[in-house]
Amino acid sequence: LNDGRAPFVMRVNGWGQLRHTATHYEDPDDDLNQFQLKRARLIFSGSVFTPDFEYFLQLDGRSSSGDDMRLLDYYMVYDVGHDLLGRPRGRLGFKAGKYKMPFSLARQISGREFEFTDRSVASMYFDVNRSLAWGLFGQEDVFGKPVHWEFALFNGLVTGGAETGSSGALDDNFATSMRVYGYPIGDWGASQLADLEEHESLAARVGGGFASSKINDSGFTEFDSSRVVDSGQTLASLLPLAVDQYTVSLWAVDASFKLQGWSLTYEYYFRNISQFQGAAIPDLFDHGFWLQAGKFVCPERLELVARWSRVQGTSGTLGVRSESTEEVAGGFVWYVRGQHAKWTLDITHVNGSPINSQSLDITPGNAGWLFRNQIQFAF
Amino acid sequence: LNDGRAPFVMRVNGWGQLRHTATHYEDPDDDLNQFQLKRARLIFSGSVFTPDFEYFLQLDGRSSSGDDMRLLDYYMVYDVGHDLLGRPRGRLGFKAGKYKMPFSLARQISGREFEFTDRSVASMYFDVNRSLAWGLFGQEDVFGKPVHWEFALFNGLVTGGAETGSSGALDDNFATSMRVYGYPIGDWGASQLADLEEHESLAARVGGGFASSKINDSGFTEFDSSRVVDSGQTLASLLPLAVDQYTVSLWAVDASFKLQGWSLTYEYYFRNISQFQGAAIPDLFDHGFWLQAGKFVCPERLELVARWSRVQGTSGTLGVRSESTEEVAGGFVWYVRGQHAKWTLDITHVNGSPINSQSLDITPGNAGWLFRNQIQFAF
Amino acid sequence: LNDGRAPFVMRVNGWGQLRHTATHYEDPDDDLNQFQLKRARLIFSGSVFTPDFEYFLQLDGRSSSGDDMRLLDYYMVYDVGHDLLGRPRGRLGFKAGKYKMPFSLARQISGREFEFTDRSVASMYFDVNRSLAWGLFGQEDVFGKPVHWEFALFNGLVTGGAETGSSGALDDNFATSMRVYGYPIGDWGASQLADLEEHESLAARVGGGFASSKINDSGFTEFDSSRVVDSGQTLASLLPLAVDQYTVSLWAVDASFKLQGWSLTYEYYFRNISQFQGAAIPDLFDHGFWLQAGKFVCPERLELVARWSRVQGTSGTLGVRSESTEEVAGGFVWYVRGQHAKWTLDITHVNGSPINSQSLDITPGNAGWLFRNQIQFAF
Repeated sequence: LNDGRAPFVMRVNGWGQLRHTATHYEDPDDDLNQFQLKRARLIFSGSVFTPDFEYFLQLDGRSSSGDDMRLLDYYMVYDVGHDLLGRPRGRLGFKAGKYKMPFSLARQISGREFEFTDRSVASMYFDVNRSLAWGLFGQEDVFGKPVHWEFALFNGLVTGGAETGSSGALDDNFATSMRVYGYPIGDWGASQLADLEEHESLAARVGGGFASSKINDSGFTEFDSSRVVDSGQTLASLLPLAVDQYTVSLWAVDASFKLQGWSLTYEYYFRNISQFQGAAIPDLFDHGFWLQAGKFVCPERLELVARWSRVQGTSGTLGVRSESTEEVAGGFVWYVRGQHAKWTLDITHVNGSPINSQSLDITPGNAGWLFRNQIQFAF
Repeated sequence: LNDGRAPFVMRVNGWGQLRHTATHYEDPDDDLNQFQLKRARLIFSGSVFTPDFEYFLQLDGRSSSGDDMRLLDYYMVYDVGHDLLGRPRGRLGFKAGKYKMPFSLARQISGREFEFTDRSVASMYFDVNRSLAWGLFGQEDVFGKPVHWEFALFNGLVTGGAETGSSGALDDNFATSMRVYGYPIGDWGASQLADLEEHESLAARVGGGFASSKINDSGFTEFDSSRVVDSGQTLASLLPLAVDQYTVSLWAVDASFKLQGWSLTYEYYFRNISQFQGAAIPDLFDHGFWLQAGKFVCPERLELVARWSRVQGTSGTLGVRSESTEEVAGGFVWYVRGQHAKWTLDITHVNGSPINSQSLDITPGNAGWLFRNQIQFAF
Repeated sequence: LNDGRAPFVMRVNGWGQLRHTATHYEDPDDDLNQFQLKRARLIFSGSVFTPDFEYFLQLDGRSSSGDDMRLLDYYMVYDVGHDLLGRPRGRLGFKAGKYKMPFSLARQISGREFEFTDRSVASMYFDVNRSLAWGLFGQEDVFGKPVHWEFALFNGLVTGGAETGSSGALDDNFATSMRVYGYPIGDWGASQLADLEEHESLAARVGGGFASSKINDSGFTEFDSSRVVDSGQTLASLLPLAVDQYTVSLWAVDASFKLQGWSLTYEYYFRNISQFQGAAIPDLFDHGFWLQAGKFVCPERLELVARWSRVQGTSGTLGVRSESTEEVAGGFVWYVRGQHAKWTLDITHVNGSPINSQSLDITPGNAGWLFRNQIQFAF
């Protein structure tokens, strides 16, 4: 939707994801057999006065949070480099509002671009997700290849929809995060994960991210959000009551490849929780990854996909010993119209989930099988 | 709103319904004297890539659920018959998402098209309403007249906005429903109920529907939704605790007529609840109807309307004896601009309501008078 | 956004306000150090069939109420005078829906037009805010100058998002309010408060308003909304339990001036609470004001602003003695693009707040300093 009076532009878009989930979990967990509206997006975006000033507003009405319409994103982007410093577009920008914090590849990519339609268990365990933030981003050429970077200062890890103001539950500490990524080999193409382009020569993408926040129990939304492996309990529930603060640091590195219909994605996460105040708790160190492969058996149309994700670490025993949990999945994607309309079916096995994710239909402790049959459509 | 790049089309519309409700109920029920925003709709619809792929998204901000904006509908329609099978448009379609389940005439019709601006008590008692569903629909010619049909497989009866996922409260059983209708006599015209067209010769519409679901107490949203006549209590509250499952089947038949400013609508409902598990409960059989008549005393402008609706059955006594409840209403509609702007005033009497409906301002047990004075406007 | 088929017009707009709040309150109140999305607006407006029929729909997603999208405004305006009586446009109109009740200058002005980006403590204390209403408005020439007036009949004071219907919490009594204002001297210009126009000769605006409602404890949303000075407790919590009804009357008068980059705004409020039923409580009389001055030190770009607001009265002691509370603030506004993009920084001191306002980040009893650093942008 463009009203023709450039530089004023407004687009209205949306996309939906309908899922049939059937689970076969071990007792005592209840099984699901449901139709769900996992994503019901409505997006308003555009620019105003100048292409250097853009806005993005996204609403969501997923059925896993009832029928209320939620505000997912609301932010503005200002291309400082182009408008004030005379640099080319995209070299230095300012971003403010509610949006996805720069950190992992898994979060950077839109759900429309997934091969499995949802993130891996490991990606959710080491997630930073959305928050209210002020940030900078840009692009520099390194050895002739563009390298993208983004930095954000924000309310805290996984605080996206948390109520602010005095009745809210956020602590006084800001968090920081950043992400850097580039394309060292070949021309990556438009599709984020799948090799819809059937690359004739290798294309690669590499990236990395960092996030850190001091978390105080004055903000229970934050204090209660970190979970441990492999029980999936909240860290706060394991800690002695005397502990009122700790620091979480997260790292991520990723590499992805595309060649002749094959695609391979690997992202490794590290999390260190330290500086416990109030009791003598050792540093808790978790790590994990997701490794995903896809192959078009019918070019641009039918893709077979497989995924392995794993989380391992000492958090669940407060440092006593290392525990781990795994997720293995296989399935296929039928691309009716590229990323605009597709049908995905996956079979996933988890052996004791460390996350609480409505979007994955996986809650703490779940062990067993999930069958997720879903369609995505965009407008 | 059309951006001209067919086949990409987007329309943004809305309609509102403002009501002044005053009640005079018998004790101990509290009376109301309020302004209400009964419907505050915002609609995004259109097609993408091809006219055979359409989407529909409707938000609502009714004041009877506070000031949150709710997602009412979010679905896609794909004309399989035209796009893949070379048949004319509308002959065979696939529909998926959140939408009104096919069953009764009363629910099929938009609130904008009512003569009384709201459904009858009987229509709400035997309602199936919205749900998350996958469905098929189409049209066939029978004796030279088009007959429309629609089928849906969905989460359960009256589960529209129910939270899905493991924290939700839906059981594992899907429900099914269907509706068939046609126009055996004359040219029905655009208006659904009122004879705004001042038909010179008779026009008729007939239809029927069926819905059925096994309801298990693992989904308390569903288990608690069925009510009984004439107390309006939930069936679940009457049943022995040992009962953990039953099956509800619903039938509806309807006939409508238009002639010379007169309009007559009659829909009859049947509900059978059976196969109780956990205790020996006999089948519970309820039935009821709404009969509505309208006559334009000033063509296309002022219409007098009357309605009688009734619910009767054995559900309220768990099969011991039949009880009944009635609603009688009269009023007028002033059409300022057809269905786009109108003013409706009705006086309704109920003698012990069997429903809990915020949209009607009627709760269980209400007996007495309602005065509802309202305007509807569309954009 | 205009689809060109006048008189059908639809515009989609929005504006956001991002704030960093840091407070330094006296004990025992918790301090804040947060990023907040204070306003996240999305607006649909236009006319349909005729320019005499307009609609306005505003959504808001402020982070202080979580991440739900709320319906802020939904109303229609019908220019009865022009369409039916042949008078010029704007002389007599009918308005219905959810909107800001006519009463004070502070509420009439959009948050986009503030100099401090938020209202004063006094303005919130004597606020009427939004409600569901039916109203009339118009304009008459008095001594050659247009005088604007508006009248509304509505659900009650500060009842905007209150749930209606029998499960809601509104009493049976409607409230009424009105506002009259005009521009006796000069040409006021487009900016509501700041002298962005750098007036060469004096421009003045004067106005006044009145609101009144009988408040019954059958509607606890209303019964609990009036607060007292200077503790900020609710009046209901101070009253003997036997009191089940009282009457609130509010008056406001305002005057504003602009000259050579200077702007001055003064609004005085009076509130009388009387006719207590159930116990012998004397009339409670409170009054207060906000006085605000601005001066552009760099025309159309950088404005220095100062504000003093005060609330005083006998309500907090149920008539025994008068208490008072004050707010003093200073700051600056950097107008990047007039009211479309600006940056505001203010330092505010309160000495015991009598209000509970998430939008101001001030809750009852707060004493100390606030630092609010924010950007507003519109599209």
